[in-house]
Amino acid sequence: MINLEERKNLIKAALGEVPLDLRIDHVQVVNVYSGSIEPGSIGIKDGRIVTPYAKDYQADRVLDGGGSFAIPGFIDTHVHLDSTLVVPENLSRLLLPRGTTVMLADPMEIANVAGLAGFKALLGSIDKLDYHIFLEVSSRVPTAPGLETTGGELDLKDVCEILTWPQAVSLGELDPSKVLEMRDEYLLKVEAAQRLGKICNGHAVGRIGKELVAYACGGLADDHECVDYQEALSRLNLGMAVLIREGSTERNLDLILEGVVREGTYSQHLMFCTDDKHPDEILEEGHIDFMVNRAIDLGLIPMQAIQMATINAAKHFRIEHLIGSLSPGRWADIILTDDLRQIKPDRVFFKGKLVVDKGDYIGELPQPDYPDWLFNTVKLTKGNHSIDYELEHNGDHAQVWVIDLFPDQIINTKTQVRLEVKNGLVVPDLERDILKLAVVERYGKNGNVGITFVKGFGLQEGALASSIAHDHHNIIVAGTNDEDMAQCAVEIERMQGGFILVSRGQVLGRLPLPIGGLLSQEPVDIIIDQLEKINQAYRNLGGTLPAPFMTISFIGLPTVPDLGLTDQGLVDVFAHRLISSFVS
Amino acid sequence: MINLEERKNLIKAALGEVPLDLRIDHVQVVNVYSGSIEPGSIGIKDGRIVTPYAKDYQADRVLDGGGSFAIPGFIDTHVHLDSTLVVPENLSRLLLPRGTTVMLADPMEIANVAGLAGFKALLGSIDKLDYHIFLEVSSRVPTAPGLETTGGELDLKDVCEILTWPQAVSLGELDPSKVLEMRDEYLLKVEAAQRLGKICNGHAVGRIGKELVAYACGGLADDHECVDYQEALSRLNLGMAVLIREGSTERNLDLILEGVVREGTYSQHLMFCTDDKHPDEILEEGHIDFMVNRAIDLGLIPMQAIQMATINAAKHFRIEHLIGSLSPGRWADIILTDDLRQIKPDRVFFKGKLVVDKGDYIGELPQPDYPDWLFNTVKLTKGNHSIDYELEHNGDHAQVWVIDLFPDQIINTKTQVRLEVKNGLVVPDLERDILKLAVVERYGKNGNVGITFVKGFGLQEGALASSIAHDHHNIIVAGTNDEDMAQCAVEIERMQGGFILVSRGQVLGRLPLPIGGLLSQEPVDIIIDQLEKINQAYRNLGGTLPAPFMTISFIGLPTVPDLGLTDQGLVDVFAHRLISSFVS
Repeated sequence: MINLEERKNLIKAALGEVPLDLRIDHVQVVNVYSGSIEPGSIGIKDGRIVTPYAKDYQADRVLDGGGSFAIPGFIDTHVHLDSTLVVPENLSRLLLPRGTTVMLADPMEIANVAGLAGFKALLGSIDKLDYHIFLEVSSRVPTAPGLETTGGELDLKDVCEILTWPQAVSLGELDPSKVLEMRDEYLLKVEAAQRLGKICNGHAVGRIGKELVAYACGGLADDHECVDYQEALSRLNLGMAVLIREGSTERNLDLILEGVVREGTYSQHLMFCTDDKHPDEILEEGHIDFMVNRAIDLGLIPMQAIQMATINAAKHFRIEHLIGSLSPGRWADIILTDDLRQIKPDRVFFKGKLVVDKGDYIGELPQPDYPDWLFNTVKLTKGNHSIDYELEHNGDHAQVWVIDLFPDQIINTKTQVRLEVKNGLVVPDLERDILKLAVVERYGKNGNVGITFVKGFGLQEGALASSIAHDHHNIIVAGTNDEDMAQCAVEIERMQGGFILVSRGQVLGRLPLPIGGLLSQEPVDIIIDQLEKINQAYRNLGGTLPAPFMTISFIGLPTVPDLGLTDQGLVDVFAHRLISSFVS
Repeated sequence: MINLEERKNLIKAALGEVPLDLRIDHVQVVNVYSGSIEPGSIGIKDGRIVTPYAKDYQADRVLDGGGSFAIPGFIDTHVHLDSTLVVPENLSRLLLPRGTTVMLADPMEIANVAGLAGFKALLGSIDKLDYHIFLEVSSRVPTAPGLETTGGELDLKDVCEILTWPQAVSLGELDPSKVLEMRDEYLLKVEAAQRLGKICNGHAVGRIGKELVAYACGGLADDHECVDYQEALSRLNLGMAVLIREGSTERNLDLILEGVVREGTYSQHLMFCTDDKHPDEILEEGHIDFMVNRAIDLGLIPMQAIQMATINAAKHFRIEHLIGSLSPGRWADIILTDDLRQIKPDRVFFKGKLVVDKGDYIGELPQPDYPDWLFNTVKLTKGNHSIDYELEHNGDHAQVWVIDLFPDQIINTKTQVRLEVKNGLVVPDLERDILKLAVVERYGKNGNVGITFVKGFGLQEGALASSIAHDHHNIIVAGTNDEDMAQCAVEIERMQGGFILVSRGQVLGRLPLPIGGLLSQEPVDIIIDQLEKINQAYRNLGGTLPAPFMTISFIGLPTVPDLGLTDQGLVDVFAHRLISSFVS
């Protein structure tokens, strides 16, 4: 929001009664409203754009844009901050060099760990950051009540309160079961959001036909779970925007945009998001810039791809008066780049301040300042002994359900295998890449341990574990043997959260995430170094996944088909109920 | 808003658990989200669309669409209800056959006459109508405080209250002087609207350069006053949407869209409005349908023109979850038409109910029910005698300012002429088409009479007058002689408002508008008949304007350049102050 004095200053500057703070001359203005690309000079006052055609204005300071293209800062339309592993204070170093100036974030993870207090603690620095965070207000904490144990929750009252915050732009991704079962609590959240003029984000993973129609009838305005063009088109045809996602393990862009280009689909209701992307991949591959460039490679014209990353998103989230274009009154979030067909931010401005120069971040990171209790959220009641991971069975063999991973997708397939039973215990089958998978309750509440099997990790020895385990964020551990699995849990409690890789009793890699068991306040490069080392150690043990800790954090999800695993056991997602790990 | 029970019913219908109320089979669905036009069946429950691809659904009733195109109902993005002269209850008969199902209305006229109470009285039937009225909340009642006398006003508190109503979609057209002078009251209204997630409508008539930039910095999201492509482009380039207007006297569509087609300008931020259009012209020429068809004639593809009339508008006003597309959960406002290049609504549905069949309105009009006091708003203190219209001057001639009309535009030119003085009184010059123009205060407050001269009416004898006189709605009268002018005022008081034409003491035509002096509750055909007769009588006296009573109602506007006239006298619009009618 802009207050009265700020508004008056801006108008005075626009009238030429007071000088601009800054004028960036000699740029080609990429105007996402008119579609024009024309020479301009961007005039800035108090961090806001006065006009992108400011050549007639006096300014206290003038910069030469060197003839480069001026583009509005990019918008990530759906992201979970914790997937970057980095506290918001340190994230600028990753985001700004990529031109991302706006994160529309659903902080449901911290809320699952620590409720409303955690939610507020995570956002303590929101006004000191050199990128914007707007909130997609977590609609389901816990995600699967009755099917999982969480550390905190957000009830209807909490959600309604947060929705009134000025940073709140939407009700965050509501999973379909809540709508299809017509549960009052969630439908009332939708009603509250709409009454406040906010949209409701969807999460229509895998839904088709009448279920998809019913979900749209629930008031959900978009979907970020489309895996191909046909799915995307089915959403558009039902009046839902499509937030095209390209994260660490969910890569949907190519299949969607190839169709868009081929069919000439209207792109006005398309935009980009990462959802979940690890910091090493943001650093190496990029962020929204990567998606824009890829879209252009696939045949979209640059203006269209840039609109998807800017104004389309701003309009969809009803904040086009604040961000999304280089227009009067909007925040002066600007990317300067030499090439419009392969955008590489050379300089980036946030609220009129130069934060990236020659591609390097030059801003000042605010000091993280989190409360002590947020560093103390892992309390094991069970799971520290190998016996806790044992799965007993009578007979020589057992027929069990397996979570069968899909490469590059968040969804999985429900398959069954026949496993050997030794000494009355079902054992993994490394030859067929079947590991044991467990979720250990970590809030000191009940000591639940859910156990099943998983295919796709490729591990030949040892075990890996994470205290990021959507959406309950208990400890999830996949292993070749019970001893290493137990040690993983012990080590995670010792770190108060993080990623761990153990083999034959030795810790081969660790990445501590002590803030709520989700985030680290170490600098980005240290986190990336730790992540690369633990990933390498995983590969040394035969691991085949590109981002194993991203994968393991998602495979337990009780809301993404076909199967999920929580501390309470195996979940049949479509049926939305617990089932036995044994095929009956 | 949709409440919990309605939402559940809709979801049940979507899941197929209960039958649809209606299925319209065998249509080509014009999908404004994806841009596709494909065969479909529109499924409807409780007045809302379940899905436009409903062939697999059971329904209580099935209609054959006969292969016609199904289009979302059209949206008029800026309209003053009183310009139709018809009470909202009777307007359906004009709008629905033209496919207009949504009026985004700024009821500033009734507020100027009767304040918040008048505002509420006008909207008494809003839930009984078979079209939607959403509110652009009048930002300036009075428009020109200190320069005009009005019957009522809306202060900051009133405006903030109305903005919270569920029907309120925006702050209504704020005129530039308020912003450029940085007046707290109006900037606080902008802030209030934005805080509530609503947009602010602009009214940037004639503004260019730094003033336009300053206006955009004021938070105004659009402009409906563009007269040509260059103006429209200048707004788009500053991040303002353009509401292309085609009213009775302001005809901007061709000049704007010819440019859009020629330059390939992005049309995502373009939409349509009528602003002010008399009922006879809506009947003969059309409404938004006329603009869509004209846009297609000018070279836009039909989908693009239809998007401008539907989804673009809905998104701009942030009500795309309610209207603007044939998508799940939206109101079932549907046009069926055989030809997409020349749209002629054959059947029209409002909230799923057939209200137009074979082009004819078949709905049921609600009974108007207005309070008695609203029929009693014209109280003359002065202006009933010819002496009240005399303009004294010493000497043989006087140099006076003239409001020189522009054909088909709302703006006028400030020119000066030398007029003869007879018996100490300045007299009109019929040879040069210079009539006397007066505004008579009609709220019984002070008996002010403002006098100047006007060029462009073509009248050779008599006088015409109207109690619709933007935005103060005093009595405005243009005449060849003072006696007929006085009689006009007397007749208008007798009717308690309306249009009147008098010559040589005889009333040659009248159209009573007794509700606030603005509206008639007579049926549309009677009003149109009266309007046609009075227009014909005007032409019989030499009149040359196509819609003289629309013109006269606007030429006094103290906010549209160059000159205005109020009960307090002649207004220099750019200087925003009263000036003498004599050139000094």
